[in-house]
Amino acid sequence: MTYCCALRLDRGLVFMSDTRTNAGVDNISSCRKMFGWSDENAVITLLTAGNLATTQAVVSMIDERLKSPGERHPSILGLPSMFAVARMVGDLLKEEIARAGSGQMNADAGTFGATLILGGQVRGSPPRLFLIYPEGNFIEAGDDMPWFQSGETKYGRPILVRAFEAGMSFEQAVKLLMVSYDSTIKANLSVGLPLDLQIYAADSLTPGPTRRIEAEDPQYLAVSENWSAALKSAFDSLPDVAL
Amino acid sequence: MTYCCALRLDRGLVFMSDTRTNAGVDNISSCRKMFGWSDENAVITLLTAGNLATTQAVVSMIDERLKSPGERHPSILGLPSMFAVARMVGDLLKEEIARAGSGQMNADAGTFGATLILGGQVRGSPPRLFLIYPEGNFIEAGDDMPWFQSGETKYGRPILVRAFEAGMSFEQAVKLLMVSYDSTIKANLSVGLPLDLQIYAADSLTPGPTRRIEAEDPQYLAVSENWSAALKSAFDSLPDVAL
Repeated sequence: MTYCCALRLDRGLVFMSDTRTNAGVDNISSCRKMFGWSDENAVITLLTAGNLATTQAVVSMIDERLKSPGERHPSILGLPSMFAVARMVGDLLKEEIARAGSGQMNADAGTFGATLILGGQVRGSPPRLFLIYPEGNFIEAGDDMPWFQSGETKYGRPILVRAFEAGMSFEQAVKLLMVSYDSTIKANLSVGLPLDLQIYAADSLTPGPTRRIEAEDPQYLAVSENWSAALKSAFDSLPDVAL
Repeated sequence: MTYCCALRLDRGLVFMSDTRTNAGVDNISSCRKMFGWSDENAVITLLTAGNLATTQAVVSMIDERLKSPGERHPSILGLPSMFAVARMVGDLLKEEIARAGSGQMNADAGTFGATLILGGQVRGSPPRLFLIYPEGNFIEAGDDMPWFQSGETKYGRPILVRAFEAGMSFEQAVKLLMVSYDSTIKANLSVGLPLDLQIYAADSLTPGPTRRIEAEDPQYLAVSENWSAALKSAFDSLPDVAL
């Protein structure tokens, strides 16, 4: 599994992904799941969850198209809108899953599947955030659904439901993601540190701060340790229940 | 789905179950998933999650055996230990799943499955709590693993991990379960109010307070409403993160 999450704030986008990849509990390692591309007209971030061969192939195909600009396929930079970018990435994902699955006798449906979170901005329109399904189609974040999660989403969801605000600062958003990840990591072995963080400030058209949060990151440790105490005191502050 | 949870406290056992049952999101209804049996020597509570036909059949078989004490099968009351009770219930579950599955051409493995949480006390030994798998075998709660969840367990788990203490009062435990259920209900349609609550005080050998918590229950509403504010202030109390 994996846990990827991206928030759509009033001031921009915040992305976080873990790096745990596993094939069974006795075969785990670390692997980057956050990728980015940018030029003077576009900033694009991609978070990948699912079959690692599939997601790496999609990323490689995006990279290859950028290296051979003369060929007939469009590259991810230079497209007119984030919608067009999502279409292209969704098509690449769908094709790669179909290619991997064709001719396989013994693979379940879904074996080669992956789900992508794609966000960014193309000059001339606002930042947009998409969740791309293995089928290649996608949904977009909006005011009613201002964040996307993929992978191991459940443990970290309650705090998002309660504490997310579209007007929060980037610092608060990073803290929120740290709590959401910490709740997940404490319960599920398939999500693990280090985490990758990427911030994009709306209309900057420049990739914002990027950080790898290691297990010994003092800010992450402070959030994790203080969250236990804060949750306990929140719990103690609840009205008593009579039996 | 369903969400069942039972806590093993120093002072006894606390059980909670929801009542949502569904076959698809357009076919939901309410159904009790908490069952109890007691006499002067034993108090037993069962929480059921999984295929409703399977779990109702298991409960009916337990009931039928109590009504015909002359037959060769043992009844759930009168067994020498909670271990023996768990064995009997596990065997009934396994047999029922095998019966339902035999002769089926088009059912996936797991279609008829169910998972049970069984707890209580038989005179002469301490209260015990078990999680019974569809295969009929089971594990027991202990100091390292002092609670069991079944069904839709993930959303409600982080607060248990952080706030559970074996020495907590029954009132605190009920509050903790209300928070755990509220986090789940806010995120997942397959878990729904009303909730059933059962408390068992160690060595009382009498069923403790039982309650059905309806959607308009003022204590549940107070916990649910205050938890949002408490979580937000807990979140705000965390140390700031610099970017």
